[in-house]
Amino acid sequence: MIIVSEEICQQVIGRQDAFDAVEAVFGAMAKGDAYNFPVIREAIGHADALYGFKSGFDRAGLALGLKSGGYWPGNADKGLTNHQSTVFLFDPDTGKLKALVGGNYLTALRTAAASSVSIAHLARKDAKVLGMVGAGHQSAFQLRAAAEQRDFEKVVAWNPHPEMLPKLGEVATQIGLEFEAVDRDQLGAEADVIITITSAFEPLMMASQIKPGTHIACMGTDTVGKQEVDPALLAAATVFTDEVAQSISLGEAQHAIAQGLIAEADITPIGNVINSAHPGRSSADEITLFDGTGVGLQDLAVASVAADLAAKAGTATRVAL
Amino acid sequence: MIIVSEEICQQVIGRQDAFDAVEAVFGAMAKGDAYNFPVIREAIGHADALYGFKSGFDRAGLALGLKSGGYWPGNADKGLTNHQSTVFLFDPDTGKLKALVGGNYLTALRTAAASSVSIAHLARKDAKVLGMVGAGHQSAFQLRAAAEQRDFEKVVAWNPHPEMLPKLGEVATQIGLEFEAVDRDQLGAEADVIITITSAFEPLMMASQIKPGTHIACMGTDTVGKQEVDPALLAAATVFTDEVAQSISLGEAQHAIAQGLIAEADITPIGNVINSAHPGRSSADEITLFDGTGVGLQDLAVASVAADLAAKAGTATRVAL
Repeated sequence: MIIVSEEICQQVIGRQDAFDAVEAVFGAMAKGDAYNFPVIREAIGHADALYGFKSGFDRAGLALGLKSGGYWPGNADKGLTNHQSTVFLFDPDTGKLKALVGGNYLTALRTAAASSVSIAHLARKDAKVLGMVGAGHQSAFQLRAAAEQRDFEKVVAWNPHPEMLPKLGEVATQIGLEFEAVDRDQLGAEADVIITITSAFEPLMMASQIKPGTHIACMGTDTVGKQEVDPALLAAATVFTDEVAQSISLGEAQHAIAQGLIAEADITPIGNVINSAHPGRSSADEITLFDGTGVGLQDLAVASVAADLAAKAGTATRVAL
Repeated sequence: MIIVSEEICQQVIGRQDAFDAVEAVFGAMAKGDAYNFPVIREAIGHADALYGFKSGFDRAGLALGLKSGGYWPGNADKGLTNHQSTVFLFDPDTGKLKALVGGNYLTALRTAAASSVSIAHLARKDAKVLGMVGAGHQSAFQLRAAAEQRDFEKVVAWNPHPEMLPKLGEVATQIGLEFEAVDRDQLGAEADVIITITSAFEPLMMASQIKPGTHIACMGTDTVGKQEVDPALLAAATVFTDEVAQSISLGEAQHAIAQGLIAEADITPIGNVINSAHPGRSSADEITLFDGTGVGLQDLAVASVAADLAAKAGTATRVAL
């Protein structure tokens, strides 16, 4: 088996690899070739930690395994990342452990790949302004990946803690985009594509703030109770997701579903658009919304690519088990 | 993090270590200090494989993690073990991966430790004859561990494939016990302690074949549909188990429960006996039955000990992640 450290992951796998892997696995999920197993998520009653696993099998890509990990809120004080993830890949032909892959960098990469797959397939081709709601660790990954999907000229951004915005502004500048910190009215009025990437438990963007033709990718809601946008926005938009079962239970759609504003049947797996079984955006004025809940198969897909690339590059550590 | 290979596991951890670890974690479970997370078990639709995870957290022993693994029926033809297991241990204070431990040898060791914990706490002190139903890979582990719990003189054994019995007989001879291949009537009539360790889907021992005072450890039933003994035997016996929830759903008790012969409340966690919250055997004539379903916490307990011992011995491989 091989070990691919966090450091090696950062060396071998890039945004385009992650985009291709995530797009392929979303397509495989929609065809029934790949499926996620039930998610385990436990408050363990120690160190205030949330711990669990996301797992699945992609019969097409032959990726089998799990991402274990969780959230340890006291880690930052110890100089460690609060989120801790590791991906374990198994050989589907024999069940033997094949690779152990650091999952922290990959989690940010695959989450950014998901929103950028949604932008590639659903945003207007003429989108010029990218709106960022959130300026934490993952926002830079989101911005860099999104910027490659359309010919953006400007980034407008808002964050509950405005002092975090200049760091995101530096990323925009690095990739040649104008950057402006704005209020949420201006953000909605200017942005053609919006990414929300926060840990919010209340709507940060209201339906009335979103202009026709916008594509919005809601990437922060992955737990019961979390929320980033107005449920009325889901009723006004055409809603797509990575996995419908998660979208309605712990994704952004949970609130609109609970309030009866939309039904499960109103939500389309983005894999159907990727597979050309759904046309995607139907008009220039349509609002499209992607509910990115995050599935284990995304982790397995990017980890498989990282493991293959590291093995080819000779940078993976080989150990006997 | 450290890697403890199958080979190192066999060098560092012995039966007494496993016994102590399993006894302690059964006690912790009964006190509510340790709990198993939901089990993931999937027929993946590839290579006829069954794949999944058993996981949990022991707040007392500070063991957090999972055993991944499964059953690949085609492995034997490739010179590999059909059952493939790996244990992953995490630091409960930070969530960081702490150890990766080969799980094949440990699975046999911890399963044998469970039946021997049941024998230590429930069998008559004067037991002289050990009955073995089953002669497969795990039976030798079971026999060696059980033999250390009482002053046995003889082993009587039966297996659906009698040609496998001489190999088990060699193990008995090695540890100084007389060995006789018998039919099931004779096995029940002679044995004071019986271990069933098969993959049966039908009762192999009937209630009428079991004499008063017997302790029987049913170790093979870990799946819906599997069965080793007559459901009437569970009604006649005092029933103990590792975890009641598994016992009634996928353990040996599933059939007696389904037929209404016993109720959930009739089944006692063996941890209560270990913790002296239940007296255990109440008379010389009582039949005691241990339903060993196998829980993730057993795997974590023995893997933790193996990891600690390998680290101390300097035989674990250290790698960066």
